[in-house]
Amino acid sequence: MARVVQKFGGSSVADAASIKRVAKRVVASRQAGHEVVVVISAMGDTTDELLDLANQVSPQPPQRELDMLLTAGERMSAALLAMAINDLGLQARSFTGSQAGVITTGVHGNARILQITPGRIESAVDEGDIVIVAGFQGVSQDTKDVTTIGRGGSDTTAVALAAALGADFCEIYTDVDGVFTADPRIVPAARRIPRISYEEMLEMAACGAKILHLRCVEYARRENVPVHVRSSFNNLDGTWVTDIDEEDNSMEQAIISGVAHDRSEAKITIVGVPDRIGEASKIFSAVADAEINIDMIVQNASEVSTAKTDISFTLPESDGKRAVAALNAIAEDVGFDNVLYDDQIGKVSVIGVGMRTHPGVTARFFGALAEAGVNIGMISTSEIRISVVVDSAEVDQAVRAAHTAFGLDSDTEAVVYAGTGR
Amino acid sequence: MARVVQKFGGSSVADAASIKRVAKRVVASRQAGHEVVVVISAMGDTTDELLDLANQVSPQPPQRELDMLLTAGERMSAALLAMAINDLGLQARSFTGSQAGVITTGVHGNARILQITPGRIESAVDEGDIVIVAGFQGVSQDTKDVTTIGRGGSDTTAVALAAALGADFCEIYTDVDGVFTADPRIVPAARRIPRISYEEMLEMAACGAKILHLRCVEYARRENVPVHVRSSFNNLDGTWVTDIDEEDNSMEQAIISGVAHDRSEAKITIVGVPDRIGEASKIFSAVADAEINIDMIVQNASEVSTAKTDISFTLPESDGKRAVAALNAIAEDVGFDNVLYDDQIGKVSVIGVGMRTHPGVTARFFGALAEAGVNIGMISTSEIRISVVVDSAEVDQAVRAAHTAFGLDSDTEAVVYAGTGR
Repeated sequence: MARVVQKFGGSSVADAASIKRVAKRVVASRQAGHEVVVVISAMGDTTDELLDLANQVSPQPPQRELDMLLTAGERMSAALLAMAINDLGLQARSFTGSQAGVITTGVHGNARILQITPGRIESAVDEGDIVIVAGFQGVSQDTKDVTTIGRGGSDTTAVALAAALGADFCEIYTDVDGVFTADPRIVPAARRIPRISYEEMLEMAACGAKILHLRCVEYARRENVPVHVRSSFNNLDGTWVTDIDEEDNSMEQAIISGVAHDRSEAKITIVGVPDRIGEASKIFSAVADAEINIDMIVQNASEVSTAKTDISFTLPESDGKRAVAALNAIAEDVGFDNVLYDDQIGKVSVIGVGMRTHPGVTARFFGALAEAGVNIGMISTSEIRISVVVDSAEVDQAVRAAHTAFGLDSDTEAVVYAGTGR
Repeated sequence: MARVVQKFGGSSVADAASIKRVAKRVVASRQAGHEVVVVISAMGDTTDELLDLANQVSPQPPQRELDMLLTAGERMSAALLAMAINDLGLQARSFTGSQAGVITTGVHGNARILQITPGRIESAVDEGDIVIVAGFQGVSQDTKDVTTIGRGGSDTTAVALAAALGADFCEIYTDVDGVFTADPRIVPAARRIPRISYEEMLEMAACGAKILHLRCVEYARRENVPVHVRSSFNNLDGTWVTDIDEEDNSMEQAIISGVAHDRSEAKITIVGVPDRIGEASKIFSAVADAEINIDMIVQNASEVSTAKTDISFTLPESDGKRAVAALNAIAEDVGFDNVLYDDQIGKVSVIGVGMRTHPGVTARFFGALAEAGVNIGMISTSEIRISVVVDSAEVDQAVRAAHTAFGLDSDTEAVVYAGTGR
């Protein structure tokens, strides 16, 4: 008997029929002898409909009230799932995030889980009940107001609950079969990854793989919760995200686990920055003051004779305009020549713990890109990742070239991708 | 400056436009210098839509989960109203019943308010905010589960909150202009009653006037909270339900305040009950065991020679079948002849504290009925009420005759009745 936390996303509970299907799945786990706690998202379009209602009464609704409104969505799906399970003859009880003891920061719309005090959940599980928890929501430690946990909130709730309950593992049910070596819409020969380490999954999430949110993976790694990402539409094994002992797995470990890509970033280049101490600091302070997160940074001397340099960095495309404005405001003070903005870029990354022990990964990656005729704009690396910025029109070619170069292509085509996951 | 609790029903918040209209009304009260706490029902059809969803996943959903589901409705309207008020430039905060400290019994679907601990509401009011409370809901004292308060739940919440907050009065906004001397759909000459005592309003509610629920009036009387029932569609004065000093108002007090009617009851007659001690007790024990509330009871000897009697009583029509079954089950034991069931009845009541000091009310009432050709089936009285059971087809005539006989007819026609109220 295992204790398991299962999370079902909005696409798995789009309507009454899908709620009944999820109920059958949950009941099967319980009847297999497991203790089951379910975290559930709002039904399909509920959140969008509620946002639409909010916009009808106020163009800029306060975040506190928006949280109060939106959390009704998960509350409804949680109650409905509990009903459907009861209808199958098993006891189920639904709880709000607040009732489940999900304590968060007070940042409405983007709260972080501080701790979980799952007393009521524990009791219900001990009494043999299936527990349904409304995902995406918690209660602020300071104000006791209802909060929402921001993007990936239900996944993170599930992992955090699994940790707090000492669950054996956490299952994330989604609309794809697991984590793939690349996006199957770009690489039809992409393969499902049966097991991946927390570190690699973190890099994948940070580099554009949308299947699990960064925060959720961070939480799983910190609390050492094994996560099983799998499809809610079949019974196939998905991808296990776990703490992999590299020694044990060296035999089967590929050098590269996957190729990720991200088209959501833009690049800013500041031309002709005086090559003096403190100028870069001024530039990045201005960007930080605008509360913009930057990703890659590259500095290279463009005109050695004039002691000037160019600085480029990438950032979320959605923050582009604000960043350019913040930089133009300090142009005179810093004394640079010009700010260039380019949103026609994409980032392609190869990720794998194998590169720690295998030299030549960079050479092989760049060689494959060159052969495919892809020009590299920027480069950044971590211990287990190499990322390049390329022209957005060349992202697909770059992903395919890398996938082939590292021997990831499968003999058969991947199952058709049903959506983007959440 | 007054402290006031305002309650708006589902018909007042049917869509985004009506929520904005309610927001303007609330803001006007705040800007007039009052401290305002609002209790709000779910938007128009929300509750029915949620019930429909519930029935799609389970034919008999557990009450606990139904409460979890349905309370989402008031939560949404509360958050939306807070947004609309914020949009008008004033601070508003929404709270669930649980957050507002509405502590109830654990009877899901029909809980009763045990007490209100309005600490968070008090703080928010003290900080100058307009407070919006989701009506119809609370939290069970024992299990901490979410409960719904049953019929009239939002009205009762409003009155209970007014009492707990020491509010000067409670305004119940509805879709009619107040309490009328009779249903204007039956008596076009019915008049709005400007003031009515708690006792009279209690009798009116118990006798079929649907504008305020019995529990709500009971609560108001016990806690001595003045209630102002008025329309949300205009600014006219409605009806004040208060503690009326009879001495002070004897001059203006009519003998009869209003005529109420109720078509929702049925009559059961048990024919040929042996006239022995304990037989009536057996009969009403059987009905009570089936958890059926009975209203009027009449016993009269039908056949003196045989020492047998008939017993008639009225009960909610919806409980009729169960009551007949319960009685047939004890027919042999008690030894009565027969059970007759009649759902084609109606109850007509005249109500007024004036009848305490004015003899002849009964004579005038019965005289009017006789003149109108209405046959009286059963009679019951209280200190301030006389009720008769008549054929359902004669209810309208009986109401009109009584209304005229006690001088209640107005010279002008009543404003058209928009609905049934809640």
